[in-house]
Amino acid sequence: MKAPLFTLLQQDQDSHARLGLMRLPHGEVSTPIFMPVGTYGTVKAVTPRDLGDMQAQIILGNTFHLWLRPGLDVIRKHGGLHRFMAWQKPILTDSGGFQVVSLGPLMRIREAGARFHSHLDGSEHLFTPERSVEIQEALGPDIAVAFDQPVMPGSTERRDVLRAMQRTHRWAVRSLRAHSRGDQALFGIAQGGIDPELRAESATYIRSLPFEGINLGGLAGDETPEERNAAVEATIAALDGDHRVRYLMGLGSPVDLLEAVLRGVDLFDSVLPARVARNGQAWVTGGRMNLRNARHLDEDQPLDALCDCSTCRRFSRAYLAHLFRAEELLAYRLLTIHNLRHLSAFMRAIRLALRSGTLAAELPRLRAAAGGPGTPRLGVGDEPSEEPARGAMRPRYAEDGRLRGVNRQRATAREGRE
Amino acid sequence: MKAPLFTLLQQDQDSHARLGLMRLPHGEVSTPIFMPVGTYGTVKAVTPRDLGDMQAQIILGNTFHLWLRPGLDVIRKHGGLHRFMAWQKPILTDSGGFQVVSLGPLMRIREAGARFHSHLDGSEHLFTPERSVEIQEALGPDIAVAFDQPVMPGSTERRDVLRAMQRTHRWAVRSLRAHSRGDQALFGIAQGGIDPELRAESATYIRSLPFEGINLGGLAGDETPEERNAAVEATIAALDGDHRVRYLMGLGSPVDLLEAVLRGVDLFDSVLPARVARNGQAWVTGGRMNLRNARHLDEDQPLDALCDCSTCRRFSRAYLAHLFRAEELLAYRLLTIHNLRHLSAFMRAIRLALRSGTLAAELPRLRAAAGGPGTPRLGVGDEPSEEPARGAMRPRYAEDGRLRGVNRQRATAREGRE
Repeated sequence: MKAPLFTLLQQDQDSHARLGLMRLPHGEVSTPIFMPVGTYGTVKAVTPRDLGDMQAQIILGNTFHLWLRPGLDVIRKHGGLHRFMAWQKPILTDSGGFQVVSLGPLMRIREAGARFHSHLDGSEHLFTPERSVEIQEALGPDIAVAFDQPVMPGSTERRDVLRAMQRTHRWAVRSLRAHSRGDQALFGIAQGGIDPELRAESATYIRSLPFEGINLGGLAGDETPEERNAAVEATIAALDGDHRVRYLMGLGSPVDLLEAVLRGVDLFDSVLPARVARNGQAWVTGGRMNLRNARHLDEDQPLDALCDCSTCRRFSRAYLAHLFRAEELLAYRLLTIHNLRHLSAFMRAIRLALRSGTLAAELPRLRAAAGGPGTPRLGVGDEPSEEPARGAMRPRYAEDGRLRGVNRQRATAREGRE
Repeated sequence: MKAPLFTLLQQDQDSHARLGLMRLPHGEVSTPIFMPVGTYGTVKAVTPRDLGDMQAQIILGNTFHLWLRPGLDVIRKHGGLHRFMAWQKPILTDSGGFQVVSLGPLMRIREAGARFHSHLDGSEHLFTPERSVEIQEALGPDIAVAFDQPVMPGSTERRDVLRAMQRTHRWAVRSLRAHSRGDQALFGIAQGGIDPELRAESATYIRSLPFEGINLGGLAGDETPEERNAAVEATIAALDGDHRVRYLMGLGSPVDLLEAVLRGVDLFDSVLPARVARNGQAWVTGGRMNLRNARHLDEDQPLDALCDCSTCRRFSRAYLAHLFRAEELLAYRLLTIHNLRHLSAFMRAIRLALRSGTLAAELPRLRAAAGGPGTPRLGVGDEPSEEPARGAMRPRYAEDGRLRGVNRQRATAREGRE
């Protein structure tokens, strides 16, 4: 019998938070952890060496994007995604469910799968659970994910949430049947929108299947933090006694991650840290900093004196603010490195508190560091982090036709998961 | 008395090529060498660590650009350009003459200096030899350059070439008088267009002044390679017996550099290797490769099996071709690293041949590696390097008003020297 992928090392006494370890073909991964997103075979603007410097342990690749570009032939020729992108540590791929459904009017869901037109060349495709698994087996990540049908959590009628959840369950079974790579784990996705009953029902069903990890899907969308917290709590309650790893897809801000960890989630991914970096926002202890603010041109100090990233070790706020004003490519890279390291260091702080059994005592400090509501403003134009996940899924169901070049918000929404 | 900046280590027996060493406050520099251009305090898309990996020994900063953005106050606060951009090896700054003159209709040359309107905010400025030296002393490079008035070499009437040359001579004297930093070298610029008599006259005059190095200005523009070679030969003949370092500003392709080295030039700079990289062109042994060519998506090998750069050590042509198609920021960085390393390795090969006294014997091999005219095509869409310097200065004297956003070619021309 195969050794379990996930080992629960420690269960917090005061919350559902837990310390764990995933043993994967390409290495071990400590949880709770955040996974940077490498949509097209690169975490935008950074190299595998940069990721190593920031102590990233696992990254996410987007099945749907990689299937369209460069396509499976190219990646097969390299023997898989690891070698293609020169990243030797673990990779998780999503199933493409989110991306396919995000095509909105270009896409029709049927029981067989999702039929859609490519946003790149208009060609017609059918994406099925079997196809998603086949693609992920070719990509060769350590962890693959079953194909699902997410819905907008905050604005979808219960009837449609229910229908998508039931279809997700049937697709989960088909994904399991299709999956054949013994060296690759397959995770299942529990849906149910923000309805606690449906969340519990979905989690109960998915836990009955032989997946090696359980995803919380269809969140990090247009729900409020309160709605999300309730949905997570209902899911985790239904998973009581289950020792598999739990992964909330699409969540990325420090404050959101902390709240989800406290409710029992182990894994996260989001393009948010890299995306806000490209917009000139640095996440720092206690909040965020807008580098387009002229004030920072006078500041000779690093972004965050507490940060050990290669950007903070070498460059000043003034230099970074200058690079953004001059629209230098280096700006995007240096700030992406910082934000990703900021988040990985934050998750490490949570793990250390869990290990020492002091999470409850350290919560006020961690909440302040995450820059949640109530923390002081850092200065004009700088703000404590808010709920960046809210609204992140909004572009999904736009009504007009072609996605390509329609507007900037929708274009960026296609890059990967929020 | 101050030790000379430049030591002539070896003089080739069959050409004017020479091996030398510059001892500068921030380190030693072996010549002949190419200097990557860091217009706005960054060599576009790469970090100082990347530059170290590619064994860059000295880089160039653009006085005019840095003066406009971020401005001297910001750089003074960091104690100079070295600390601002976190580069600890030698820096040379240009004088801003080329950039000011490139403003064309926004600029008027008077004996006092050049009066112009900023392309960033329209504000009016007077740039003088004294101002240029003052700015360069604040920037704090190892080497500063006297303010000059270059002209388009191939298309300027002799009368105007003469007038600009004579003004450059008067400005050279004013630059020397204004220069006060004992820890900073000052180089003078010999002009004269492509007229061999004027080149000789200018070189003879400039060598009579106490500069620590002599620049060949006003080339790498709209002249033919033959015109350039003749101008270089006339200049070098007039510098016979002079042991100072010689710097041809703005030249950047391997084939052009080799020809200039053979004629006695030691130093070079250009944005060309980085710019062609951003356009998807890799310089490889024997020619160049267009990564937008679909064929490369099938190629699992590195750009150049002979290259030791961090890109060639880790990534395949297929991966790089994919990144360009997906317009990933990482593409620009990885290809810039390769092209700059390609050129620095090529210059190193020239230095090794000079050291071993085998340059003449190795010339056919070096010319083939440089990919000059006559070398075979590498494949569909790939070509041996041609004369990329030709036409590079053309945007300079455009006739219409504002430079800002007029067109792409002119916008990129403002980034730095060609």
